[in-house]
Amino acid sequence: MVSRRTAVAVVGAGPAGLTVANLLRRAGIGCVLLEAQSRAFIEQRPRAGFIEEWAVRGLEQRGLGEQLVAKAPRHGKFEFRFAGQRHVFRYGDVTGQRHFVYPQQLLVTDLVAQYTGAGGEAVFEVSDVELHDLTSDAPAVTFRAGGEEHRIDCGFIAGCDGARGVCQGYFPAESTVKAHHDYGIGWLALLAEAPPSADGVLFGIHPRGFAAHMARTPTVTRFYLQTAPGETEADWPDERVWQELHTRLTVPGGAIIEGKLFEKRILDMHNYVVEPMSHGRLHLAGEAAHLVAPIAAKGMNLALHDAFLLTDALQAYYAGDPAPLAGYSAACLPLVWQYQEFSLWLSDIFHHTAAAGENPFAARVAEARMRRLLGSPAAAAAFAELYIGKNADL
Amino acid sequence: MVSRRTAVAVVGAGPAGLTVANLLRRAGIGCVLLEAQSRAFIEQRPRAGFIEEWAVRGLEQRGLGEQLVAKAPRHGKFEFRFAGQRHVFRYGDVTGQRHFVYPQQLLVTDLVAQYTGAGGEAVFEVSDVELHDLTSDAPAVTFRAGGEEHRIDCGFIAGCDGARGVCQGYFPAESTVKAHHDYGIGWLALLAEAPPSADGVLFGIHPRGFAAHMARTPTVTRFYLQTAPGETEADWPDERVWQELHTRLTVPGGAIIEGKLFEKRILDMHNYVVEPMSHGRLHLAGEAAHLVAPIAAKGMNLALHDAFLLTDALQAYYAGDPAPLAGYSAACLPLVWQYQEFSLWLSDIFHHTAAAGENPFAARVAEARMRRLLGSPAAAAAFAELYIGKNADL
Repeated sequence: MVSRRTAVAVVGAGPAGLTVANLLRRAGIGCVLLEAQSRAFIEQRPRAGFIEEWAVRGLEQRGLGEQLVAKAPRHGKFEFRFAGQRHVFRYGDVTGQRHFVYPQQLLVTDLVAQYTGAGGEAVFEVSDVELHDLTSDAPAVTFRAGGEEHRIDCGFIAGCDGARGVCQGYFPAESTVKAHHDYGIGWLALLAEAPPSADGVLFGIHPRGFAAHMARTPTVTRFYLQTAPGETEADWPDERVWQELHTRLTVPGGAIIEGKLFEKRILDMHNYVVEPMSHGRLHLAGEAAHLVAPIAAKGMNLALHDAFLLTDALQAYYAGDPAPLAGYSAACLPLVWQYQEFSLWLSDIFHHTAAAGENPFAARVAEARMRRLLGSPAAAAAFAELYIGKNADL
Repeated sequence: MVSRRTAVAVVGAGPAGLTVANLLRRAGIGCVLLEAQSRAFIEQRPRAGFIEEWAVRGLEQRGLGEQLVAKAPRHGKFEFRFAGQRHVFRYGDVTGQRHFVYPQQLLVTDLVAQYTGAGGEAVFEVSDVELHDLTSDAPAVTFRAGGEEHRIDCGFIAGCDGARGVCQGYFPAESTVKAHHDYGIGWLALLAEAPPSADGVLFGIHPRGFAAHMARTPTVTRFYLQTAPGETEADWPDERVWQELHTRLTVPGGAIIEGKLFEKRILDMHNYVVEPMSHGRLHLAGEAAHLVAPIAAKGMNLALHDAFLLTDALQAYYAGDPAPLAGYSAACLPLVWQYQEFSLWLSDIFHHTAAAGENPFAARVAEARMRRLLGSPAAAAAFAELYIGKNADL
């Protein structure tokens, strides 16, 4: 058994865990970062890609956003493509804020390099992670790595290991507030070796189902396709993928450019929130605490919000003020619920409008919602704030 | 058989039918107004009470709003009462527009007096109304009145006889777009001989269910109570009514004043839209065409909107331009669907927030929606527009 002692054990090296680990190290608070995958794996794994301006500025102010700010293209508009027409929505003009398009693996790569380069302690490819004595003053984490048993005695554990991690399992079952109804549909997430077909995001609202295009880099583009309940990747050969993308997204003068598909993954379209996000000395951050279906690209942004608040709270704790840590969950949850609400609201536009055959009432209501967004400056301003996350933390 | 001939037979003397009949008469277009109830009955029947400023101005500009504008109190704010606190929402300040509080029976009384006083032809207490030859150029209405059979040959029929009238039955079944899901709850509508407990509308968001208070006149106040599915008026003795109103609506310094209850009626909380609203020579207006649950007091406002558009279109027709009448349904429906969407959206705040025990996820989402409304000026402005119907016709 290899034993060591630190202030904070950070479980999971995604955007939340890496941000927490970097900020603790910079604040001079001891920490060890544990990750089930290899460093090479997490530096390649494609996931989210849209970071809201407030989160970018939060990283920048904390010394973690230099590469991101230097490299990421900025988006301030999207298009609805509906009934063969383009409807451009310029949320950047309305709010003065932009999305920074920076694939998650690039942010992860930056944050790992900064952390390890500055001497931060990280252990990759850990397994059998177990948490101990969470409601005592002296919790611990045990795990296997490099063929050996390890134990870390610590003051706190930051549970940042995502929706399928182990940390969430230490919460009482009744803490998890699940959406009663799943969306009933899936999204097929795709990455193509193709240049962007437009200089931003396209949302295709079509009787055959929702589709989306998200410009990522000059050579890689993300697409989404709404799938029927129960469909798997095997139901979507490349030919069917492109046929549906063309059908659902093309408008006159706005064709979709094909390319080699190198990711094809059915996404879970469900939502939950662990409430409260703290259990004894274990504090969750990111998707370990809350999953929001990728309707509005909110997941990584919430992870960063949690990470900022958790490190601020831990810093305050070690500076003698335990109040922010006691209030950590209550400080995070308002934004979590705002984004859950927003994602459900937007999901109705995406999915109900398309489902006119099954539920024409819901389809007409959703179409009215979309029309309002495009026609009323007041509605547009309210939407734009939430879409970019300006003043969202109510 | 008493036969006569006119340009437009107007079936139903509610706000829609009376507005249509008055405006046709003023335009010199022949019409006969038919009503199943007695004049005395409709002049007493309590129903809606909140008229949006655009609708008031529409009546005023058409010479029908004099009494209303002279007498109706104006409301520009409401209160959410939630978790023992008041949250005042000043939509009048945001939009510059107000609700005119004028019980429907007063408007009906004014409109009947104006119509009959100017020589308009009305037949009350008709029965066995049947419509004929609707898809020909020469439709007709037959009915019984005063012990005799009557027939009116006409150019058009304005179907304004409400959700339970006969006109809707002449539409193909597939025209009616129904909400898939009812709200699953009821509202108990109450009128009390009591002065208002506050100078406006109160919405009580409470774990025991939604409740509302609406100031009407100095001596009569409307209340609503959310009821469980299947409950009837018999389940709500006066004592239970007052107990629940106190529990759900009282805040410190804001008591509810009791009075004799003289209306107690369970409301259907469902929605439908007949689409299109025209079938041959029959054009629907008001609740014959669309029912919106009374969440946001939209029903009478939509009825007036339809009535304005229908009379404008009939005037154009008789002046030689058939296009507005051909486009009547398409002109009405955008506002209908905006108000359906708004009512569903607001219903989630009213009912889901209260249902934390059954569906905590939906309750938290609804609470986030309410908090946003109260905390974000942009969200408040977008909401206020729809609540008062400013620029709502998208």
